[in-house]
Amino acid sequence: MDFEYSPYTQEMLARLQTFMEDHVLPANRRFHELAGQGAYPLEVVEPLKAKAFEAGLWNLFMPELEDSDPGTRLSNLEYAPLAEAMGRVPWSPEVFNCNAPDTGNMEILKRFGTPAQKKRWLEPLLTGEIRSFVGLTEPDAASSDLTNLATTIRREGDEYVINGRKWFSTGAKHPHARLAIVFGVSDPSPEADPHHKHSFILVPMDTPGFEVVRDVPIMHHHAPEGHCEVVFRDVRVPLDAMLGQEGDGFMLAQARLGPGRIHHCMRTIGQCELALELMCERALERRTFGKALADNANIQDWIAQSRMEIDAARLLMLQTAWKMDRDGARAARVDVSAIKVTAARLQTQVVDRAIQVFGAAGITPDTPLSYLWTWGRAMRFLDGPDEVHLKVIAREELKKAKGAVGRNLAHFVPPHISASNKGH
Amino acid sequence: MDFEYSPYTQEMLARLQTFMEDHVLPANRRFHELAGQGAYPLEVVEPLKAKAFEAGLWNLFMPELEDSDPGTRLSNLEYAPLAEAMGRVPWSPEVFNCNAPDTGNMEILKRFGTPAQKKRWLEPLLTGEIRSFVGLTEPDAASSDLTNLATTIRREGDEYVINGRKWFSTGAKHPHARLAIVFGVSDPSPEADPHHKHSFILVPMDTPGFEVVRDVPIMHHHAPEGHCEVVFRDVRVPLDAMLGQEGDGFMLAQARLGPGRIHHCMRTIGQCELALELMCERALERRTFGKALADNANIQDWIAQSRMEIDAARLLMLQTAWKMDRDGARAARVDVSAIKVTAARLQTQVVDRAIQVFGAAGITPDTPLSYLWTWGRAMRFLDGPDEVHLKVIAREELKKAKGAVGRNLAHFVPPHISASNKGH
Amino acid sequence: MDFEYSPYTQEMLARLQTFMEDHVLPANRRFHELAGQGAYPLEVVEPLKAKAFEAGLWNLFMPELEDSDPGTRLSNLEYAPLAEAMGRVPWSPEVFNCNAPDTGNMEILKRFGTPAQKKRWLEPLLTGEIRSFVGLTEPDAASSDLTNLATTIRREGDEYVINGRKWFSTGAKHPHARLAIVFGVSDPSPEADPHHKHSFILVPMDTPGFEVVRDVPIMHHHAPEGHCEVVFRDVRVPLDAMLGQEGDGFMLAQARLGPGRIHHCMRTIGQCELALELMCERALERRTFGKALADNANIQDWIAQSRMEIDAARLLMLQTAWKMDRDGARAARVDVSAIKVTAARLQTQVVDRAIQVFGAAGITPDTPLSYLWTWGRAMRFLDGPDEVHLKVIAREELKKAKGAVGRNLAHFVPPHISASNKGH
Amino acid sequence: MDFEYSPYTQEMLARLQTFMEDHVLPANRRFHELAGQGAYPLEVVEPLKAKAFEAGLWNLFMPELEDSDPGTRLSNLEYAPLAEAMGRVPWSPEVFNCNAPDTGNMEILKRFGTPAQKKRWLEPLLTGEIRSFVGLTEPDAASSDLTNLATTIRREGDEYVINGRKWFSTGAKHPHARLAIVFGVSDPSPEADPHHKHSFILVPMDTPGFEVVRDVPIMHHHAPEGHCEVVFRDVRVPLDAMLGQEGDGFMLAQARLGPGRIHHCMRTIGQCELALELMCERALERRTFGKALADNANIQDWIAQSRMEIDAARLLMLQTAWKMDRDGARAARVDVSAIKVTAARLQTQVVDRAIQVFGAAGITPDTPLSYLWTWGRAMRFLDGPDEVHLKVIAREELKKAKGAVGRNLAHFVPPHISASNKGH
Repeated sequence: MDFEYSPYTQEMLARLQTFMEDHVLPANRRFHELAGQGAYPLEVVEPLKAKAFEAGLWNLFMPELEDSDPGTRLSNLEYAPLAEAMGRVPWSPEVFNCNAPDTGNMEILKRFGTPAQKKRWLEPLLTGEIRSFVGLTEPDAASSDLTNLATTIRREGDEYVINGRKWFSTGAKHPHARLAIVFGVSDPSPEADPHHKHSFILVPMDTPGFEVVRDVPIMHHHAPEGHCEVVFRDVRVPLDAMLGQEGDGFMLAQARLGPGRIHHCMRTIGQCELALELMCERALERRTFGKALADNANIQDWIAQSRMEIDAARLLMLQTAWKMDRDGARAARVDVSAIKVTAARLQTQVVDRAIQVFGAAGITPDTPLSYLWTWGRAMRFLDGPDEVHLKVIAREELKKAKGAVGRNLAHFVPPHISASNKGH
Repeated sequence: MDFEYSPYTQEMLARLQTFMEDHVLPANRRFHELAGQGAYPLEVVEPLKAKAFEAGLWNLFMPELEDSDPGTRLSNLEYAPLAEAMGRVPWSPEVFNCNAPDTGNMEILKRFGTPAQKKRWLEPLLTGEIRSFVGLTEPDAASSDLTNLATTIRREGDEYVINGRKWFSTGAKHPHARLAIVFGVSDPSPEADPHHKHSFILVPMDTPGFEVVRDVPIMHHHAPEGHCEVVFRDVRVPLDAMLGQEGDGFMLAQARLGPGRIHHCMRTIGQCELALELMCERALERRTFGKALADNANIQDWIAQSRMEIDAARLLMLQTAWKMDRDGARAARVDVSAIKVTAARLQTQVVDRAIQVFGAAGITPDTPLSYLWTWGRAMRFLDGPDEVHLKVIAREELKKAKGAVGRNLAHFVPPHISASNKGH
Repeated sequence: MDFEYSPYTQEMLARLQTFMEDHVLPANRRFHELAGQGAYPLEVVEPLKAKAFEAGLWNLFMPELEDSDPGTRLSNLEYAPLAEAMGRVPWSPEVFNCNAPDTGNMEILKRFGTPAQKKRWLEPLLTGEIRSFVGLTEPDAASSDLTNLATTIRREGDEYVINGRKWFSTGAKHPHARLAIVFGVSDPSPEADPHHKHSFILVPMDTPGFEVVRDVPIMHHHAPEGHCEVVFRDVRVPLDAMLGQEGDGFMLAQARLGPGRIHHCMRTIGQCELALELMCERALERRTFGKALADNANIQDWIAQSRMEIDAARLLMLQTAWKMDRDGARAARVDVSAIKVTAARLQTQVVDRAIQVFGAAGITPDTPLSYLWTWGRAMRFLDGPDEVHLKVIAREELKKAKGAVGRNLAHFVPPHISASNKGH
Repeated sequence: MDFEYSPYTQEMLARLQTFMEDHVLPANRRFHELAGQGAYPLEVVEPLKAKAFEAGLWNLFMPELEDSDPGTRLSNLEYAPLAEAMGRVPWSPEVFNCNAPDTGNMEILKRFGTPAQKKRWLEPLLTGEIRSFVGLTEPDAASSDLTNLATTIRREGDEYVINGRKWFSTGAKHPHARLAIVFGVSDPSPEADPHHKHSFILVPMDTPGFEVVRDVPIMHHHAPEGHCEVVFRDVRVPLDAMLGQEGDGFMLAQARLGPGRIHHCMRTIGQCELALELMCERALERRTFGKALADNANIQDWIAQSRMEIDAARLLMLQTAWKMDRDGARAARVDVSAIKVTAARLQTQVVDRAIQVFGAAGITPDTPLSYLWTWGRAMRFLDGPDEVHLKVIAREELKKAKGAVGRNLAHFVPPHISASNKGH
């Protein structure tokens, strides 16, 4: 359990930070100007991608990367501080081909795709030539329980026919988006095992019947790549579009979510650090009623509290990354749930304090705080609502306790119980 | 301290609720469509205003309303449930000529305007013909301490010359906006009493040198009437544009804020009720893992907690309204601070729970919750940040305690003190 | 809904406060000295009872008091500020014959006792001659669900035979305790209606087979009157010891708890006021790092927060009292649950802040804070754990929402639903 | 930064846990019985000490232990899980000679004592022959600011004369207590540097003029070793009783507190684990309203939340221990403050939830929870109140931010500032 950043990690981090300083931050304002006009800022992002590729800062998120793949292979633990650094500029992960949901999609293609599927989809994803999205959540279903999802993947002869509606399909509006990875019911028979009746299928976005209905803003914010509502109406794909086997949907959904969840957490930590820095800077700079904000004990408490919470969350995140590296994502499942809940809550808490120190400026687009706060709220649903993860953690804890009931109170027996053989 | 709604209040409330059901709610979707296109939805609002005027649901916010003024006079306590009902549709107060900041502007014009000022500005405001804004907060100053505000109102011969920059000027983008009420330094001499060196001045918005620079979105949300950044560059107005006397700025700011603050709180309570209703409806309707959300004890706790908090906040608000009616806004100053802080915190808390019950739909524009939550965050700055109000309350409490130090512990004297005449 | 203290209430309150100042507070140290020696401080309490009786400050808690009964009849609303004042000295209610659990016991005897039962037990309770306790909670059962309680009340010929173990029997150790009111299963048949199988029975404490096993300290604190564990072994009482009818246990338990719960809340408010006063006094008095504690913004926030929370809780309590007076305890059931939860949480919160301002002195017996804080924790169980009450409130709220599902979102229909007749 | 328990640590932990199971836990009830009778349970503790000494489970807390000293040397990181295990039985650390305040006293004697002082005091402390206490906090001073402390250490000829009153002198009532280490003003001159005017002095407890005035219960709980109020009246000691140099008081206080604080945190983590285990066991066992408590989503949330918080706190604690081992206590000063605040808050939070799951039993002495909760409250003062530590953390954070003001917003410049060379 060694969390200290290795010399290699430190070197990679330094290179990434320099890249951020030299190339990404100076482009930040232009990115937002273009995004504000409603288009995806390709003119900003594409040249940066080329630079990052050249600099070896590419596909850093993927421990499974092979030597023949483009990019630099890192473990989850090594990637953690780099993802943290990327988090500070929310659009920057794409520059390094490390953005969700392409990362998760590349991971399951890597692990479960056929050679043909890899050739067609994984290769251009790894080079950053195309983008993809995942169709999971549905607007008409309580999607935290995957068994509620109703999109159908019906086999008809040598085709699958897909019908359904998805939303929060991040990336579907990206100009380079080409691939949809869609979750749906492939075995609608009532007697089907509820955890083996769904599948994931690969759908080229130019297939007839597919439509991006609208981009759904999150807390009024339109992401340039879109969190889209999409519809599939009698969309037909060949049989070899199936990812894994029919009925593998649940298993693949679990496999896909593990690393993705922790990447979000890594970026959250970085965003909270940014918010804390901003909070301190503003507190030093602003004066009311004769003294700097930083001289007020309540604001000092907020700063200290934020530092404590961020540090604790980072350690939890690093431990989870370390465990995933050592034992695999499945073994770290409960840890992932814990850091996922912790990080999402952290973000709204820390950013909320920073906003309060900024005053009204904190709720405007003149600082990154308004975005970070509203995105933090979304984080409490992303990859499953908090409550589902809390249940996972509790179930594990209760499992440990079973069989041991009474153990701890054996030496605290109250008088009436120790005397109870006399009856009452 | 009788808070029960009188038969008259109940009748007015019923009329307002019927009006909301019959006219406002059916127009809600169209309002948002038009607002989404960036224009102010006059075609929705103006006909409703005419209807509300006819129905006697007009200027309900103003206890000082005279018989010769248009509208129906209500006390603050009578107005409370009506404002609550309006709060449920955030754009509806204008329908009843009860929207901020015109309400506050009408109030200080009523109380402090000259006959000529009233003729020119108050009358068309009371009829709803024009709109106005107030220029108080400045982007470059920690504005919670009004002495930090730097806009200048310099007398030059028979004119005042105004220079400065304001933001969060709500309503400046409204197509009918005609009047700016601007706060600035009228006595810049270093020896000036810090609480008598500012003034409020009335500025027609068509005066040369005035400019609306931009509309500042709040948490990514653009209000159709705008929360604008505006600039005054050598803006010249005649001497009779001064509101009250030179140096009255502080006093007027206090007078203006009292009722306005409590109106926000009334609407907040209504919005929290709406959020709680939505939360319950969704909890009944959605099922995960084999049961309705409403059957989960954590969600039940959120519902109960919300009910308790809303009820307590409403009582605090009613008590404050009642005290303002009886003793005046000044006497209720500390109460206003208390309900202001309570209501703002309530809104983010209750709406946050409702969002969590809704799942991802709660952060989209498909429910009112995303707006209510982000607006609730803004409420913690509106009319002064929480911290300023907490300080007001604490100061009052400490004042009461002074002189009584020791009183309560007299009968709890610890041994070593009671024995201390023996010395140690 | 008029909560203002009437002139009569104000006069009674003034008399009570004078009595507290003149007689109770000066006896406080002596009371604790004697209690610390393990005996009930009769020599302090009895003379004060006589004085209070004479002063007409007697049985103030009972709206059902008849003219022929000793004491002064007040409504719940009138009693509220008096109970608040008593709360400041936790042992003082007995001085005014207003202490739990005798109050609740007197109430059910008044409403449900036979003339003989009243003669034997109610009369000496009303005069303060004897004390009583109630045997409800059991150490071996999750007692928040009354159907779990296992004490048996078995009819044998012309007697009832009682067997079982109770704890948290407050008052059982009082030297004047004579009566136990015991809850148990009177109809053990499996087909018995779970809400009509229990009864309350009156048991003279000198009946053979009854034993006080031990006094259970609450958070290490031994109350002089005891929160006792008691045991009933084949305790035999005649048939006329049954309170109400066989099977009335549930109904009586509900009837008994209503007013008792709100009395606790009243006293809590008074205790929180005391804690807030102490917090302010100490904050003014103590200096660290060159300034008074009161000059620190975090401590100011605690003071303000406490003031806001206390005021809101008091209004909720007064509203509940008013509703009980007007509509009866049953109609106010949900309100009672709400104030019960609110008050219990308030007490630990406010006192916790006061303790922190006091520093280590706050956790010693040199201030009342350590008792108030630990007692506040107990309040979260007393008369039912918070969670049971939250469930009551939530159920009511959900009931209101049923049938209205969808109402509030009708005008927020998202695009894909409004377009859904076209199918997808 | 390798936090994984080394094989050696794991072996030591296993030995300690076995010892706890075999010897300590079976003695727990007897310990409490004797302590309840008011005496120190020497008959329980002394034989266990002998056993632990033999087993090599002795003086585990002291990384500075030399080969010639009795006991087993461990680093802070190695000690952490052992202290955690000891924390589960609050009186057990003495069994291993690892109890506060003797540990801290041994540490400063080790580092700053003269050979003679070590011979006389350190040696018997290390063997467990005698006990000691530290006189720091004073009842009449806000002791979190050490400059407020008023006890005097006045030089008179070849003696120091000590006058003053201390409290929270833990251990002063222990039957083997022999040594007081007392903090006081040695240079009362007004021009003295406030951080070099205090000293620590060694006072044999049998010196005339010294008196234990009383044992001060913490939240009604009397520790058998006492948290005593003591008084020094013209207590005379020779010049060689001075620890370090005159004026070293501040420096020594800091040196003394570092490791002690983190030991408390280690034990806290163990106590929170115990509380969580108890919570789970009870939740599985108890049923209300037809289902196990463990099946309620709110209780599951409490369990999960507790697990997450404990894990995060433990990592923070291990990181601090690791940093102290590598860089020394001084370098880890801010980390120690952070874990100190985190752990103290954790304890009341986690134990509070466990209590609520236990119902009323949780506030009785029949479970360890009532002690753990009230002790958790004391932890928020022990070794300095939270607020002092938060200030330390905030100061550090603000120091880092200074000089960098504006850095983070450089690429977020709002329009009016970027346009500001045009003036406004």
